[in-house]
Amino acid sequence: MREDTFAERSDRSEEQVSGAEVIAQALKNQDVAYMFGIVGIPVTEIAIAAQKLGIRYIGMRNEQAACYAASAIGYLTGRPAVCLVVSGPGLVHALGGMANANMNCWYVECCMPPPVSMAETSAVYTAASVIRNAKQPLLIIGKGAAYAHAEDALRKLVEQCKLPFLPTPMGKGVIPDNHPNCVGAARSRALQFADVIVLFGARLNWILHFGLPPRYQPDVKFIQVDICAEELGNNVKPAVTLLGDINAVTKQLLEQFDKTPWQYPPESSWWQTLREKMKSNEAASKELASQKSLPMNYYTVFYHVQEQLPRDCFVVSEGANTMDIGRTVIQNYLPRHRLDAGTFGTMGIGLGFAIAAAVVAKDRNSGQRVICVEGDSAFGFSGMEVETICRYNLPIVLLVVNNNGIYQGFDADSWKEMLKFGDAVAVAPPVCLLPNSHYEQVMMAFGGKGYFVQTPEELQKSLKQSLADTTKPSLINVMIEPQAMRKAQDFHWLTRSNM
Amino acid sequence: MREDTFAERSDRSEEQVSGAEVIAQALKNQDVAYMFGIVGIPVTEIAIAAQKLGIRYIGMRNEQAACYAASAIGYLTGRPAVCLVVSGPGLVHALGGMANANMNCWYVECCMPPPVSMAETSAVYTAASVIRNAKQPLLIIGKGAAYAHAEDALRKLVEQCKLPFLPTPMGKGVIPDNHPNCVGAARSRALQFADVIVLFGARLNWILHFGLPPRYQPDVKFIQVDICAEELGNNVKPAVTLLGDINAVTKQLLEQFDKTPWQYPPESSWWQTLREKMKSNEAASKELASQKSLPMNYYTVFYHVQEQLPRDCFVVSEGANTMDIGRTVIQNYLPRHRLDAGTFGTMGIGLGFAIAAAVVAKDRNSGQRVICVEGDSAFGFSGMEVETICRYNLPIVLLVVNNNGIYQGFDADSWKEMLKFGDAVAVAPPVCLLPNSHYEQVMMAFGGKGYFVQTPEELQKSLKQSLADTTKPSLINVMIEPQAMRKAQDFHWLTRSNM
Amino acid sequence: MREDTFAERSDRSEEQVSGAEVIAQALKNQDVAYMFGIVGIPVTEIAIAAQKLGIRYIGMRNEQAACYAASAIGYLTGRPAVCLVVSGPGLVHALGGMANANMNCWYVECCMPPPVSMAETSAVYTAASVIRNAKQPLLIIGKGAAYAHAEDALRKLVEQCKLPFLPTPMGKGVIPDNHPNCVGAARSRALQFADVIVLFGARLNWILHFGLPPRYQPDVKFIQVDICAEELGNNVKPAVTLLGDINAVTKQLLEQFDKTPWQYPPESSWWQTLREKMKSNEAASKELASQKSLPMNYYTVFYHVQEQLPRDCFVVSEGANTMDIGRTVIQNYLPRHRLDAGTFGTMGIGLGFAIAAAVVAKDRNSGQRVICVEGDSAFGFSGMEVETICRYNLPIVLLVVNNNGIYQGFDADSWKEMLKFGDAVAVAPPVCLLPNSHYEQVMMAFGGKGYFVQTPEELQKSLKQSLADTTKPSLINVMIEPQAMRKAQDFHWLTRSNM
Amino acid sequence: MREDTFAERSDRSEEQVSGAEVIAQALKNQDVAYMFGIVGIPVTEIAIAAQKLGIRYIGMRNEQAACYAASAIGYLTGRPAVCLVVSGPGLVHALGGMANANMNCWYVECCMPPPVSMAETSAVYTAASVIRNAKQPLLIIGKGAAYAHAEDALRKLVEQCKLPFLPTPMGKGVIPDNHPNCVGAARSRALQFADVIVLFGARLNWILHFGLPPRYQPDVKFIQVDICAEELGNNVKPAVTLLGDINAVTKQLLEQFDKTPWQYPPESSWWQTLREKMKSNEAASKELASQKSLPMNYYTVFYHVQEQLPRDCFVVSEGANTMDIGRTVIQNYLPRHRLDAGTFGTMGIGLGFAIAAAVVAKDRNSGQRVICVEGDSAFGFSGMEVETICRYNLPIVLLVVNNNGIYQGFDADSWKEMLKFGDAVAVAPPVCLLPNSHYEQVMMAFGGKGYFVQTPEELQKSLKQSLADTTKPSLINVMIEPQAMRKAQDFHWLTRSNM
Repeated sequence: MREDTFAERSDRSEEQVSGAEVIAQALKNQDVAYMFGIVGIPVTEIAIAAQKLGIRYIGMRNEQAACYAASAIGYLTGRPAVCLVVSGPGLVHALGGMANANMNCWYVECCMPPPVSMAETSAVYTAASVIRNAKQPLLIIGKGAAYAHAEDALRKLVEQCKLPFLPTPMGKGVIPDNHPNCVGAARSRALQFADVIVLFGARLNWILHFGLPPRYQPDVKFIQVDICAEELGNNVKPAVTLLGDINAVTKQLLEQFDKTPWQYPPESSWWQTLREKMKSNEAASKELASQKSLPMNYYTVFYHVQEQLPRDCFVVSEGANTMDIGRTVIQNYLPRHRLDAGTFGTMGIGLGFAIAAAVVAKDRNSGQRVICVEGDSAFGFSGMEVETICRYNLPIVLLVVNNNGIYQGFDADSWKEMLKFGDAVAVAPPVCLLPNSHYEQVMMAFGGKGYFVQTPEELQKSLKQSLADTTKPSLINVMIEPQAMRKAQDFHWLTRSNM
Repeated sequence: MREDTFAERSDRSEEQVSGAEVIAQALKNQDVAYMFGIVGIPVTEIAIAAQKLGIRYIGMRNEQAACYAASAIGYLTGRPAVCLVVSGPGLVHALGGMANANMNCWYVECCMPPPVSMAETSAVYTAASVIRNAKQPLLIIGKGAAYAHAEDALRKLVEQCKLPFLPTPMGKGVIPDNHPNCVGAARSRALQFADVIVLFGARLNWILHFGLPPRYQPDVKFIQVDICAEELGNNVKPAVTLLGDINAVTKQLLEQFDKTPWQYPPESSWWQTLREKMKSNEAASKELASQKSLPMNYYTVFYHVQEQLPRDCFVVSEGANTMDIGRTVIQNYLPRHRLDAGTFGTMGIGLGFAIAAAVVAKDRNSGQRVICVEGDSAFGFSGMEVETICRYNLPIVLLVVNNNGIYQGFDADSWKEMLKFGDAVAVAPPVCLLPNSHYEQVMMAFGGKGYFVQTPEELQKSLKQSLADTTKPSLINVMIEPQAMRKAQDFHWLTRSNM
Repeated sequence: MREDTFAERSDRSEEQVSGAEVIAQALKNQDVAYMFGIVGIPVTEIAIAAQKLGIRYIGMRNEQAACYAASAIGYLTGRPAVCLVVSGPGLVHALGGMANANMNCWYVECCMPPPVSMAETSAVYTAASVIRNAKQPLLIIGKGAAYAHAEDALRKLVEQCKLPFLPTPMGKGVIPDNHPNCVGAARSRALQFADVIVLFGARLNWILHFGLPPRYQPDVKFIQVDICAEELGNNVKPAVTLLGDINAVTKQLLEQFDKTPWQYPPESSWWQTLREKMKSNEAASKELASQKSLPMNYYTVFYHVQEQLPRDCFVVSEGANTMDIGRTVIQNYLPRHRLDAGTFGTMGIGLGFAIAAAVVAKDRNSGQRVICVEGDSAFGFSGMEVETICRYNLPIVLLVVNNNGIYQGFDADSWKEMLKFGDAVAVAPPVCLLPNSHYEQVMMAFGGKGYFVQTPEELQKSLKQSLADTTKPSLINVMIEPQAMRKAQDFHWLTRSNM
Repeated sequence: MREDTFAERSDRSEEQVSGAEVIAQALKNQDVAYMFGIVGIPVTEIAIAAQKLGIRYIGMRNEQAACYAASAIGYLTGRPAVCLVVSGPGLVHALGGMANANMNCWYVECCMPPPVSMAETSAVYTAASVIRNAKQPLLIIGKGAAYAHAEDALRKLVEQCKLPFLPTPMGKGVIPDNHPNCVGAARSRALQFADVIVLFGARLNWILHFGLPPRYQPDVKFIQVDICAEELGNNVKPAVTLLGDINAVTKQLLEQFDKTPWQYPPESSWWQTLREKMKSNEAASKELASQKSLPMNYYTVFYHVQEQLPRDCFVVSEGANTMDIGRTVIQNYLPRHRLDAGTFGTMGIGLGFAIAAAVVAKDRNSGQRVICVEGDSAFGFSGMEVETICRYNLPIVLLVVNNNGIYQGFDADSWKEMLKFGDAVAVAPPVCLLPNSHYEQVMMAFGGKGYFVQTPEELQKSLKQSLADTTKPSLINVMIEPQAMRKAQDFHWLTRSNM
């Protein structure tokens, strides 16, 4: 970038190359398998040295997306990944990823997997007693359970004790969403009337309404299972806290229920309430999904996506309604196969996460696909990474759920109408984006496949083709109702979310 | 984004709307005319309230670009602009822009234009004496001179005293580049042999080789004119420092030369040396520009751009060679009409800067165009802002000078050859991007005009059409030699910059 | 401190010594004359190397005081001083000093004295007109005027135009406090009724009541003279701002009044009002000072101090009432000879400032004394520096104005009475310190002279002896009324300050 | 401090008092028992409100010491304490304490004691196996073990398995130093030849030579027991890591040795080696301690202190050699009764720590004394807190081990000799303090008892009197050899520590 710097570089190339090799070797020693970044002086040599040692280098288009990608690797593989950026502006651009992942720019964590800790035996005993005495119990399975690989132990607990469970967004798939004990379809009801809730690596943040009334019973008892002492007792005071590795602690609980077997009665009125609510909610969803009017609504779109989705795919999602409604309809069947904007609601993480998952899938030769479901505004944050996807020919199907705006937008006619009142700079509402943007052409610009979709039939067909063609990534631009209504729900204010 | 938040919002909408109005009114009182950002809860109301008061709100696609745009407004108009972001991730994304602009997120500077200060009379006298006694004088005109609106005074000084001058990248246009006293075409020679150099708002940073040998005479005398005391004496110890408003100080110097008239002999050997060097450099450039071999080289591209460029256009530029070579060929004729990556070499600023300039031009009804010359890698940092350009139908012509990579890349055949050795994830060099990416289709996806250009004729034609059509923005994707050589220069190492 | 570190140090002593010498030489090149600090591994060598080059090293007892001392040198001599601390805790301790001085830990500012800038000629003309048309003008002379060495020019302006002036705490002495035009004794009146106020390097902070009613006329016109553009227009919108070196700008103003001579009528009603108010205030002060009741009050103490104070001494002061009342009674006759807690009201700066002033005085062989007037609470922040004072035998007379507490305290009898109600840990009020603490013995512990003083006669005598004995530092512990009342003033709430 | 602020305060006193009460009540709810600080506007009311609720308020003389005191409370009592400071400079002064304690200024930790976690059963089994197979085992007991109240379990482990153990400085007393299995007197030997080392809450920092050769066997196996995963695997890669509450994990280990009983042979050659080394080291120490030459050396001083020290006293220590040598001679018999400068080697913590321990002791009516052993330089950092000690009449015996300098100093004759060469400011070495400073008079200034001590007999006598007199604090100023030599040790470089 700077001409003198070139000169200086050639003058001291020898030591630098050697410095780059030292860094690369140190990363290799730490078992780093993936490096994401954008090269520039003087870090290009590090990328090359890393490649020589077998580390995958994936060149991205903006440090933001590079950092999000690197952070996803930690979640997917349990090993640190590296984000390579130049100093100065590159580092600043990467801050978004770092803040999201709460790690430093090299993502180099300690080289040793941390040892497993367990909960105090007496506390486990107490927790088991509280569960046995619950009238309306509920398990909530969070991202921490996924991270701890607690899937087998948790499934055994659920099935042996016949307990209802609810996954958080990134806890989806630890036990498959279609498991009969999953009460995701009666989420609000389950939260509101449970008397004992066991949190497995789930935080009482905004996604879980902070654990507070009116979304919960005022006297609900929380049992909190977590590896992180700082997370315990936030927002609410738990009845029991089990500090330790979530997988190990779940096994400790199972031991209690093995010693003194117990199961929650499957014909309890609590199970009946939940099953009825699930049935009626699913019927309402199906009703919304089957509406024939055009443009489509969110439920119709996700219904068709869900129908065709391979069971083993990774699902990445971001956007406001796109992520919120999408996660209620699209099911996950495998742990650690769902990535979304998470606690922060960070916009701009989707394509980085998708690229990371796709690189992992490709490297594993698993034949798995990544389905990345983006709101149109969310896609804009890192849409140029489509070139990265095409360059590396990654097995990604991108869906842009396009309502021409942020939360909502205008259709083409309303937009034209608006322009009669003045120039767009003067009159366009802040939430509006350009109507009928052909995001699919961004994919086509780099040799991928693009589809502009307006009807359920077009959506079905394009999705089928995209999934069938394993030689190219694709982007399906799905036009939906710009002022789409959400399904009426029990809590009246949710319908106001269409501002 | 969060369902409960919607509820809370509706509960306290009244006070919030009023809060938003208070903020908007405060910004209006500060004479803020432009606001760039991305709305979200709870800042949407602020954007709407600002619009109601006549502040332009320009919705962007990533906070990075929004902040860069807002920072450019300060330079272009002398008034602060606002970058509106949501807290948390939005704020972090905006840090890039803030670091670059060295200002806070609201850009709210003091409401009063700062008063004008002048240099000490005796120091001005001394400076004039040093200039009078110079054997090989040189003026360097920097961004600070542009910011201070010193164009008239500086032009008078140059013409009255017949002094050679050199603009820095963002000082270009303070005096037109085609002024006979501009020695930009003999830049290295002028710097290397000058015995007295007067810096007008120019910093001795890496762009000016820190003012040190071998790029300068060891005993060169610097006269530093700056508004900022902290900038004085960095890197070198100046012979004279004139602290004050650059326009006012230039007028003080002119007074000295009015009192005791003086001019530097136009037939001096220094002027002869410079003119000869300019001539030979221009010939070498022209030689490079006229090469008929395909793909084109940088000089050919910029030569044709320069030929058609309207005199009053804004020029924005970023990228490594694209910016470095571009600024030697493309001329500026008006002050404050050039914006580039500046001191930091920040990548990702181009489209934000272009959007800011275009909004200003449109608001002024000046009919001016913005020419934004991007390297292909640079374009990737904020390429999705093309939707913003189309949404607001901004008078921008984007040129992507495309060498398929960062610094350099592969042509399509080499890329295919490479893929025989393994998957792209495993074998693609870190500097390579996808060959023949059709960036012009990104523009077409949003209804703008796109051109894929491989020959000088195609470039000429597409540029002509783009400039003629004032109804739509356009993007010209110019394919150049992926391993393009730079022109041989006096300092041998510069030719090595093609790593 | 660490045994292994010793080993490592000896192993690499050679390079370290050389490193220390390089640092010391660099400081010497920057014209650094003084270094304050506390040695430890690995900075001892730097102190020794600095001493070898003739830099004075003054070893302090806490990094806080070291940093305050170093910062005072900048103000006293115009040259940077160095604060030498070990990394880790030493650096953290030094932060107080750094925050106060707003400079970095090496205090190394740019090696070149900054050039002088002047105000715009037209703005100077306007300012002179506003002054000429003032009905009730007032000049306020601040620390900035002292820093700029503007004493001669300001005195000429005051005398030539016959204008009343008021110094800020650290502006005291720029023109002697006993100058007939000084209206310090009518401060509140002068501020409240002036219609034009010219600020010379003075900030409208809490000391000047932010420039707002009811302490000022709502339509008072401010003319602000400052070197720092960021200071202009804070809190109020000035009528005229003159940006530039305060000495140079004052001369520019003088030129205006030379061209068109003008003076403010000495018999105006404004001057009469001010003179009457001064007279009555001085009488009230004298009344308070002459009270015979014991323990003494603040006014009595400062009256006797003022009587004996050498005209050329440095005065350092900190504490709440001690500083506030002290500065109204104790007069300064020379510029840059007063140092106090300043804008922040920082406690703990006194002894560091006094040591710095004394070292400078000693080095200049000026025979000047430093009078350091401390509240008893203030003294506790860095009282151990008395050892430093004795070690270097510095010409300091310390006065501890002792009211047994913070703002106020208990006398010995009340303290004993209190202890009947419980242990001191349980019952002592937060503002109380131990009654009758013999702070003078802290001085005697290190060989200095100490006096415990309860009557005006003892105060007179001890002060006389202290000033007469130039061979030793001394500390006079002056017992005052623990619940001392302040003089009733025009603004009723001031009397409430005795909480 | 500021007069207007008084006015404003009285205007809104009502809401402020209520605000202070709310804060105080919140602290009380958090079980805060102690508050240290310096009052000022506007925090005085908070101190008063806290006192009303029964929280002890201890007014200090500098925020540094206040923060160190508050941080010690957490260690001593397991409950958070509060440091009350004014904003601005007060907060900055408190940073030292905060950095040392790594907590925020209110020290308010989560209100719930964290739950107990245990180590994975299989890892405990492995650790027990490694210990059983050790040829030369060693336990190291750290501060973490003290914090976890693991004293009973560890003592049982040591005695049941007959293992040698070594305490870290703040681990001293978890098992009494005079326990027959304590090999502190053969520390270097034990570290150097152990083949298995179990770390109980001890960090491999500089105090433990980072766990690296030549101070350790290259193939030594570490077993690390810690509550903090981030501490595991620092510097060395442990053979086994046991993550969990240290008390709980020790009990898990004990279960293993209960199931399959095992003990390390008391007549092994390892035990013989250690016992011989302890014997010879103790003889060498005694030899040093019994030297009759004057001034005394460190060993003589500490020998006499150790002889008279009550078994239940708190020991606080800081200073370089004072702390290093002191901790080898002075024994601790109770857990959490020793506080020293810790990992950072922070200077200035001693008096704050001593005050905290004394307030706790006084509140418990335990009749315990606090012995605070300070180097003379260390004492200077916060010596004015002696007034605080006297004000609250705290049961503290201060020893200042005085060598007239930092690391070393000059005797009075050498000092006088030195002054012949010039003024002290010019010639005093940076490590020297004033010879024969009478620090004991600082105590006497506030009514405490002071002793100036030059012989063993004087030391014995003064210490006896100090411990006998429970009505007053005392300070013993012990003059030692200014250029004292340390005992020759196995590692040759240690003797070089006398720089």
